Amino acid sequence: MASEVGKGRVTAAVLIIGDEILSGRTQDTNLRDIAKYLAVHGVDLAEARTVPDVHEEIIAALDALRTRYDYVITTGGIGPTHDDITADAVAAAFGVELYEHPDIIDLIEARVRSRPGLEMNAAMRRMARVPVGGDLVRNPVSGPPGFTIGNVFTLAGVPSIMRGMLEDVGHRLRGGAVTVSRTVRVEGSGESVIAAPLEAVAKAHPAMSLGSYPFFDGSLYGSNLVLRGRDPDELSATIIELVYALKSAGIETVREIDAP
Amino acid sequence: MASEVGKGRVTAAVLIIGDEILSGRTQDTNLRDIAKYLAVHGVDLAEARTVPDVHEEIIAALDALRTRYDYVITTGGIGPTHDDITADAVAAAFGVELYEHPDIIDLIEARVRSRPGLEMNAAMRRMARVPVGGDLVRNPVSGPPGFTIGNVFTLAGVPSIMRGMLEDVGHRLRGGAVTVSRTVRVEGSGESVIAAPLEAVAKAHPAMSLGSYPFFDGSLYGSNLVLRGRDPDELSATIIELVYALKSAGIETVREIDAP
Repeated sequence: MASEVGKGRVTAAVLIIGDEILSGRTQDTNLRDIAKYLAVHGVDLAEARTVPDVHEEIIAALDALRTRYDYVITTGGIGPTHDDITADAVAAAFGVELYEHPDIIDLIEARVRSRPGLEMNAAMRRMARVPVGGDLVRNPVSGPPGFTIGNVFTLAGVPSIMRGMLEDVGHRLRGGAVTVSRTVRVEGSGESVIAAPLEAVAKAHPAMSLGSYPFFDGSLYGSNLVLRGRDPDELSATIIELVYALKSAGIETVREIDAP
Repeated sequence: MASEVGKGRVTAAVLIIGDEILSGRTQDTNLRDIAKYLAVHGVDLAEARTVPDVHEEIIAALDALRTRYDYVITTGGIGPTHDDITADAVAAAFGVELYEHPDIIDLIEARVRSRPGLEMNAAMRRMARVPVGGDLVRNPVSGPPGFTIGNVFTLAGVPSIMRGMLEDVGHRLRGGAVTVSRTVRVEGSGESVIAAPLEAVAKAHPAMSLGSYPFFDGSLYGSNLVLRGRDPDELSATIIELVYALKSAGIETVREIDAP
């Protein structure tokens, strides 16, 4: 893996938030995914903690970790229900207020408009709350984004969404090697159809990281294929090969959604 | 979020020791197994930490956890190699020496005798080391036992062996009341619709723990609502109220999936 660059080892901690992990109901897999992702970016995962959905516990763990390590990544507790209190705890730890981010409100409104009979409600508005001074972390999968403030990144707990959000974290890390990321969007085809061409291209380009992030927004389904690597030229070539392989497999609707 | 009933909640923490977890090379599954095991014994898993194979880090985490919770269960780092330093760290935390336990030496000798060409070596002897004042934790699977000292149980990291050792832990725990769990399944409605009725019922029953766990299996979506508490009668009443509240909110497909 990469690489202590210059003087310093760059370190991170993961804070897993959720009663469902501590009760044994849910098997956490985010820790492993984050560890691997950080390694690619030259960041060492130094510690992990799992705490319940309790305001004071989240703040105490967050403060212990964010003062000791370069970065903290939290997972879980950013949904619409009353036990989703991560945003409140992060804001309290940084001593700032929460506000409804207009971009997230716009996202939710667009979604609501697309489904007859659905109306914006208080639960949905909860998911638009971001600490003052924070930035958004893009969510390429479904639903509202995560956010970052200071050295803390607050991501979803659902593994597929968490992995998608991670793609918008790496480029902000003072890490080892810098990676470039581009996204190919497939609509109307499921992962079972995408898997074979994706795997073939992945095998031909071992230096590239290829991830598939399926989405379903209530009517439209498909997958965002995120490609990441250190060499922009190989990345461009890989994108072209992947689109060709997908089309050859009979997948019609393929397009790049964040071309440079 | 859940809520302590009566006088005595009994709490535990898990300390996962191992670079292989923090590097992402190994997927931990012990936390979930321990959580489920403790729940059956009426002990709440209140926190978990994962630390690297570093003497001072293990001691610091162990001291933080063993002073705060009724029990600590450690996993990992009790094998024969140089990076297996859990026994050293536990002994140091309790301020005692390690000694070679005669029962474990006997076990290893019996094993060595049964395999021609094998000889007792220093690596094997490492696994016989137990803190002075500690007791053994039986290993019904393979290899040497774990140990316990004070309120700490030190178990293997290999999942099958860890689960076997756990069976010799439960009867030593001063357990609280056993909690009962039941699940209501909602299909075809998302969390944004479920949130309000769920929250209303949660507020009316602070002694119950209510969690919402959304699912999407490719075509069907919805959420499993898990209710947990110590009083089976209140749990039954809460289930009825919740189903009524969900139906009143216009949610059609609601049913209990693990009725007693």
